[in-house]
Amino acid sequence: MSNVKYVYTFGGKTAEGKADMKNLLGGKGANLAEMCLLGLPVPAGLTITTECCTAYYANNCQLPDTLMADVWKAMENVEKIMGRKYDDPENPLLVSCRSGARTSMPGMMDTVLNIGLSSKTIPGLIKKTGNERFVYDSYRRLIMMYADVVMEKAEGIAPVDGKGIRKILDDMLDEYKEKKGYKSDTDIKANELLELANAFKATIKEKLGVEFPDDAKAQMEGGIKAVFKSWNGQKAISYRRIEGIPDDWGTAVNVQAMVFGNMGEGSATGVAFTRNPATGENQFYGEWLINAQGEDVVAGIRTPNPLNDETKNEQNKHLHSMQELMPETYKELCDIRAILEDSYRDMLDIEFTIQEGQLFMLQCRVGKRTGIAAMNMALDMLHEGRIDDKEVVMRVSPAQMDELLHPILEAAEEKKHTVIAKGLPAGPGGAVGVIALDSEASKAYTAKKIKNVLVREETNPEDVEGMRSADGILTARGGMTSHAALVARGWGKCCIVGCDAVKIDMNARTVTIDGKVFKEGDVLSLNGAKGYVYGEALKMIDSSENPRFQEFISIVAKYQGMGVRTNADTPEDAQNAINFGAEGIGLFRIEHMFYGKNGATPLDILRNMILSSNDNERHAALKELEPHIKEAAKETLKVLDGKPLTFRLMDPPLHEFVPQTEEKQRAKAAERGITFEEIKKRIDALHEVNPMMGLRGARLGIVYPEISEIQFRALFTATAELMKEGFDPHLEIMVPLTIDVKELKHQKAIADKVQAEVEAQFGLKINYLYGTMIEIPRATLMADEIAEVAQFFSFGTNDLTQMTLGFSRDDVNEIIHSYVDQKILAADPFKTLDQAGVGQLVQAGVQRGRFVNPKLKVGVCGEHGGDPASVEFFYKTGMTYVSCSPFRVPVARLAAAQSAIKAQKQEGCCCNCNK
Amino acid sequence: MSNVKYVYTFGGKTAEGKADMKNLLGGKGANLAEMCLLGLPVPAGLTITTECCTAYYANNCQLPDTLMADVWKAMENVEKIMGRKYDDPENPLLVSCRSGARTSMPGMMDTVLNIGLSSKTIPGLIKKTGNERFVYDSYRRLIMMYADVVMEKAEGIAPVDGKGIRKILDDMLDEYKEKKGYKSDTDIKANELLELANAFKATIKEKLGVEFPDDAKAQMEGGIKAVFKSWNGQKAISYRRIEGIPDDWGTAVNVQAMVFGNMGEGSATGVAFTRNPATGENQFYGEWLINAQGEDVVAGIRTPNPLNDETKNEQNKHLHSMQELMPETYKELCDIRAILEDSYRDMLDIEFTIQEGQLFMLQCRVGKRTGIAAMNMALDMLHEGRIDDKEVVMRVSPAQMDELLHPILEAAEEKKHTVIAKGLPAGPGGAVGVIALDSEASKAYTAKKIKNVLVREETNPEDVEGMRSADGILTARGGMTSHAALVARGWGKCCIVGCDAVKIDMNARTVTIDGKVFKEGDVLSLNGAKGYVYGEALKMIDSSENPRFQEFISIVAKYQGMGVRTNADTPEDAQNAINFGAEGIGLFRIEHMFYGKNGATPLDILRNMILSSNDNERHAALKELEPHIKEAAKETLKVLDGKPLTFRLMDPPLHEFVPQTEEKQRAKAAERGITFEEIKKRIDALHEVNPMMGLRGARLGIVYPEISEIQFRALFTATAELMKEGFDPHLEIMVPLTIDVKELKHQKAIADKVQAEVEAQFGLKINYLYGTMIEIPRATLMADEIAEVAQFFSFGTNDLTQMTLGFSRDDVNEIIHSYVDQKILAADPFKTLDQAGVGQLVQAGVQRGRFVNPKLKVGVCGEHGGDPASVEFFYKTGMTYVSCSPFRVPVARLAAAQSAIKAQKQEGCCCNCNK
Repeated sequence: MSNVKYVYTFGGKTAEGKADMKNLLGGKGANLAEMCLLGLPVPAGLTITTECCTAYYANNCQLPDTLMADVWKAMENVEKIMGRKYDDPENPLLVSCRSGARTSMPGMMDTVLNIGLSSKTIPGLIKKTGNERFVYDSYRRLIMMYADVVMEKAEGIAPVDGKGIRKILDDMLDEYKEKKGYKSDTDIKANELLELANAFKATIKEKLGVEFPDDAKAQMEGGIKAVFKSWNGQKAISYRRIEGIPDDWGTAVNVQAMVFGNMGEGSATGVAFTRNPATGENQFYGEWLINAQGEDVVAGIRTPNPLNDETKNEQNKHLHSMQELMPETYKELCDIRAILEDSYRDMLDIEFTIQEGQLFMLQCRVGKRTGIAAMNMALDMLHEGRIDDKEVVMRVSPAQMDELLHPILEAAEEKKHTVIAKGLPAGPGGAVGVIALDSEASKAYTAKKIKNVLVREETNPEDVEGMRSADGILTARGGMTSHAALVARGWGKCCIVGCDAVKIDMNARTVTIDGKVFKEGDVLSLNGAKGYVYGEALKMIDSSENPRFQEFISIVAKYQGMGVRTNADTPEDAQNAINFGAEGIGLFRIEHMFYGKNGATPLDILRNMILSSNDNERHAALKELEPHIKEAAKETLKVLDGKPLTFRLMDPPLHEFVPQTEEKQRAKAAERGITFEEIKKRIDALHEVNPMMGLRGARLGIVYPEISEIQFRALFTATAELMKEGFDPHLEIMVPLTIDVKELKHQKAIADKVQAEVEAQFGLKINYLYGTMIEIPRATLMADEIAEVAQFFSFGTNDLTQMTLGFSRDDVNEIIHSYVDQKILAADPFKTLDQAGVGQLVQAGVQRGRFVNPKLKVGVCGEHGGDPASVEFFYKTGMTYVSCSPFRVPVARLAAAQSAIKAQKQEGCCCNCNK
Repeated sequence: MSNVKYVYTFGGKTAEGKADMKNLLGGKGANLAEMCLLGLPVPAGLTITTECCTAYYANNCQLPDTLMADVWKAMENVEKIMGRKYDDPENPLLVSCRSGARTSMPGMMDTVLNIGLSSKTIPGLIKKTGNERFVYDSYRRLIMMYADVVMEKAEGIAPVDGKGIRKILDDMLDEYKEKKGYKSDTDIKANELLELANAFKATIKEKLGVEFPDDAKAQMEGGIKAVFKSWNGQKAISYRRIEGIPDDWGTAVNVQAMVFGNMGEGSATGVAFTRNPATGENQFYGEWLINAQGEDVVAGIRTPNPLNDETKNEQNKHLHSMQELMPETYKELCDIRAILEDSYRDMLDIEFTIQEGQLFMLQCRVGKRTGIAAMNMALDMLHEGRIDDKEVVMRVSPAQMDELLHPILEAAEEKKHTVIAKGLPAGPGGAVGVIALDSEASKAYTAKKIKNVLVREETNPEDVEGMRSADGILTARGGMTSHAALVARGWGKCCIVGCDAVKIDMNARTVTIDGKVFKEGDVLSLNGAKGYVYGEALKMIDSSENPRFQEFISIVAKYQGMGVRTNADTPEDAQNAINFGAEGIGLFRIEHMFYGKNGATPLDILRNMILSSNDNERHAALKELEPHIKEAAKETLKVLDGKPLTFRLMDPPLHEFVPQTEEKQRAKAAERGITFEEIKKRIDALHEVNPMMGLRGARLGIVYPEISEIQFRALFTATAELMKEGFDPHLEIMVPLTIDVKELKHQKAIADKVQAEVEAQFGLKINYLYGTMIEIPRATLMADEIAEVAQFFSFGTNDLTQMTLGFSRDDVNEIIHSYVDQKILAADPFKTLDQAGVGQLVQAGVQRGRFVNPKLKVGVCGEHGGDPASVEFFYKTGMTYVSCSPFRVPVARLAAAQSAIKAQKQEGCCCNCNK
């Protein structure tokens, strides 16, 4: 015996539950209760709690002993309100069994309708309704659903020949219609439906080996179990994985009196949104079908009618709207819409049924919407006085923010076209353009203003100009951290990588995808958010700069509570990020200037430096490099004028920068006047077994102090020149890969010397901040000592994650997938910070640093700086700022504002002032 | 004005200092004071404190203002006792200025003797002593030393031509003797010495540009400064670096009245040890020289005479001993020896001078000794009742323990031979043998009982048989973690790696070292502790098993206070370690069975497993592997009977185990019936960018659960079979590379299933412990959760160090050297645990684990388990045991015992019982 209350009733303008009991009753159950409390017409029913689902699974998939007794007791209330009785031969009540989790999981779990029909109740129902056809139609629907959902899926009785029972019965129905020459289900006559029902039952017995239960009580228990069981169906599990819904939440079951939209021309069923979910416009938006049950609208068997004038479009304008055919009931529905919006202060997604002219509400929930719609509705509701500023901020998810910034393929268009290949979604938005097979081709197209997509086996630094010029990038190889992916994400450029299906023939200059040959110049469309490739030109929508976005972001700014900077390496990226509200650069990588250019340029000088065989050669190369560094820093500092630029001392992957092909190596050898063998030897000497943990970062400047020296000189000179020119440079220099304060002291001594020299040369004082990246576990442990020298910390959470977990990003992609699938890790730790592990080190680093230096500036410049869940953690940790790629700046700002508002709700103040 | 007391006087059987004031007065100063207090004849003097040295450096190399005033005041006391006056024209007192740090740094700092001789004092001293020759000899010595130590080194006045002034003056002396036909310094006559002194002074003026100071007071100040300055001389810094002496300790200065061993045939000087420092025998052991100053004995210009009969040997038996020539004074010295040993309860190293028949003690300190001597003396003194058990344990350093276990090259022999090449000291002890260039050659020699050294470019798993059979290993390439180094250390075999000078010609079967060609079969000698190679056969000494060692180790065992296990992979190694007192195996790597064997053996099966293209192939290979694993585990468990064996689940470096040469790859392809291209592809697919952080450890068993399954089955079957056979197997299984408790649960589920099956099969219950390695930073952070499932932790401090510091062992050797040289790191973190950083994680891991499970067994199986300093840290951290290679077991036991005794001194209990 259990004392737990597992069953809650609703109906007759009252209910045991209410809207804020979603965790216990599920979203559907809580909202049904709420609608009852609001006085809306809701068929009575009962909700079995999510706790019962948990108990069911804890108890080896058995219902709690007391449950069915409680259900039958609650059914007495339902029967009283509905004026019918379950399993009654005279006036039988039918019910539906529907799932309802805390959060909507549309279509992911199972439903059984028309439960309660049996040889005992059918005659009474026919008599009562006078509609034999309706009853037999309901009966054959029950049989089809029940056999599929309860018998096969929940009870695990599979047909012997491997074909699903639903498919077998569907085929029988289709064959029957064909035999009779019927076009639609509605053409089938009553006696024919009975005949079909009997045939179904025989087939079930034959294929599954057991009888369809001719017992209303057994049907009820089967239905409830089936809904619980479907919580762990394959679809539901996958959906939860994607949406990050915990497995232990469980689902509620709603048992509700059936009302019928399929009782003739005076009956109907429909779904609607209280506002347009695609655009956010304040229009009632929906579809309906006469003489149909709910599943017909969703299933897409019949084209649904428009609800009203606003909902009419090219496809459905010839069909009658509810506004036209049932103006009274439509009016009633409009009133309900107003009541619901007043109560919920949000856009709702509703389901209704009209049974012989009488309107019933079957469901309401906060409606899903596009990013654009989310923003527009939130602003409208602000102006309507329904919600306040903070609520506006909370109404747009950071993921939707991304959508607001990039042109994308129109969703409706995508549905009409076939995906010809799938790859990894590496860069945001969409792109439509002709195929360009190399940088030259892309640049030529772009010069002629022809939109183009760069298609490559994989990209390398020499492709960068083409990547810049193309509208989208598609590669056959590479992962989410490949060169193409990193560059594209940084630029906010649409990009798909690792698309195996793409075969490139550079001789023929063709691309073959799924057997189809595309010539260079043929058009492709990419959905970078999903990794889909289309073989035609699809329509794009551009949702960038508009006054409403400006209004929205200005509200976000009010609550931001933590700075957002950008990771940018060029004046253009810096300007982009400033336009998006970045407060400065949190990570400037001078290595950028080594990409994409050839000849007597920085890359070539760097190669000379790397391949030098003695100090003199290295010094000469470095001397040559210095003015390039100065110019690069100066250009960007000029754009930032007054805003900080955080310069990371060079940390180039040495072995990647050497000439890769034998041809180029021979050329370099010839140029330098040494043998090919000699150059090979020097390149081989750069090989490291685990380059991630080799000669990098601070180590480079300690082993070769002159590498640091020329950088300091370049930076101080750039600063001094800009000051002379009337600019306001805010330079911050950070040492990467630090493990000990002594490294910082070592490098600082060099900086001090150079600073004094440059100050003397220019006759002025240079102010700058000296800090470090915290990206090795030891640095977090020694943060107190480090903060005695560092004026700021910038957490490099990418490397910190690699070393804390022992995960090489280049190698463990598959392992991470396996770990996430097997629930060993909650999420990919390179996307969302591993708060349990890495988070401890981040917190320790911040606390220890601030303990020694309470004014220490602390930021994050790993890719986690653009991940909303991570941003919330960083906010709580007391970071001064996060830094992310320019296109993630608004996302991070929104995440920061939401974090602050959430914290304020709990604590009283939304800025990171530690009050 | 300073209130600090910088000057302490001694002399006349009293002193301001005493023996336990070494930190302030330095070792020499404290011991001089102590000897005065013991009533021994010590020339009076004063000691300037180490604090003054610190003040000198803090004050930019200036003496404190008040110092010289304090010195002159203290000198009044000296003058009174000695009955002479400094800088007095009638009866002048001369002094020496000597360094004296807290710990002995023999010969590393500078000394000036005969200070106080000037044109003002020389005539008086001649008159007083009536020994003109003695005075001028002392004068020329002063000039030579002063010019070198004070003028050139301390004051930085270098000769213009770059040659040191000392060398210039030495050359002048030699030329003078040659010109005169003199053999010895003592042949030079008084007037000739004056002539030389004047020539020296002129040369100093010419070369250094300044005059030698003809002023006793200036000489005194110059001498004091020079000693302080020499604390930061190059030699002293290097020595401190090697010995781990902190730079900020500083040195004291001892200003002491000169007594003269060079006043004629009744004068002498000598050094002695109160016992034999090489063997520990209770014999007075020393050397002396008549008519000489101390430096003559040390400098080796004259062969010193034996002190007594015991000290006579082949080289010096023709020379007269002090016992023979000065029996009275010898008797006096013997009495002093007894007084000192009674007081110090240790062997002492003393210096004395006899001035015209009168004995003076100039120095006493605890004497350096070999490991054998340390042990023998400690046991003798125990039996003599001088020291107790605990003191015996403390008297042998863990580094000396190593020496007690390995045969080594005799030190005296090494001095006589030239080092022809230097490499990295990778394996302990010494080896003498003929060159063998491959495994076959080595095995052939060994079969004929010819000692041999395997010389290879570098070794790989296929060389293992030769490595086993050879007496020593020498490789041209590879670092301290190369295959050869790891294998050799594990076996305690003499090994030198990375010896660049070695050039091997396998065609000619010769080895060229430094231009000299050695044929296979020619002899080499190796000093594995220093990395020295000799081109001849040197004498070896074997200090292994003897009853005294057994006595010593049994005393160590009484205080051990923490378990010591071994890292062993074979029954032989396990037995070795047990003989050395190991309590079990802390790390058993089944990978051992893949090394060194070819054909249809485990290695071959493993290759098939690694190169399998699908699940079936992999399963088949694993099935074949299972009995091999079972046999390997069983053999070793049998040897351990009753002692635990900690089995690490397989963690093979996959890419290393594939066939490396194209020939072998083709053979493998042919054997498996696939193309060469296919096998190449599979091998390439195993390539990882950072293999250290890729598909390893627990990950392997999670991605391929069947790999774990067959291991569990093999282990449980071995256990069950042994139980049936009457053995007592104690199995402990550990999962490597864990980052989360969920990994342990995942693997445990497999283990549980297999355990039940094996138990059913054999009809018995299997007890074993299930635990994990803690070797990734995240594991230390999640240790509380992990301890809910793990019954023991074994810290893998090698990998933990790699990831906490971001140091790939394979790549950062040079960087670490650079970091240690530049004092960024205190020591190589792979040799001695980085307590400041990695130590925090180890502590956190132990504390969190024990918080959840107070009985949690916690051990260490990284190489730090054999490092004394690290062992002390592990003891303090509360580890249950450390595990190290068999030959390190006694070292670790001693370190553990010493740690416990130290802790007991501070706290009251020496076992790790947390009292």
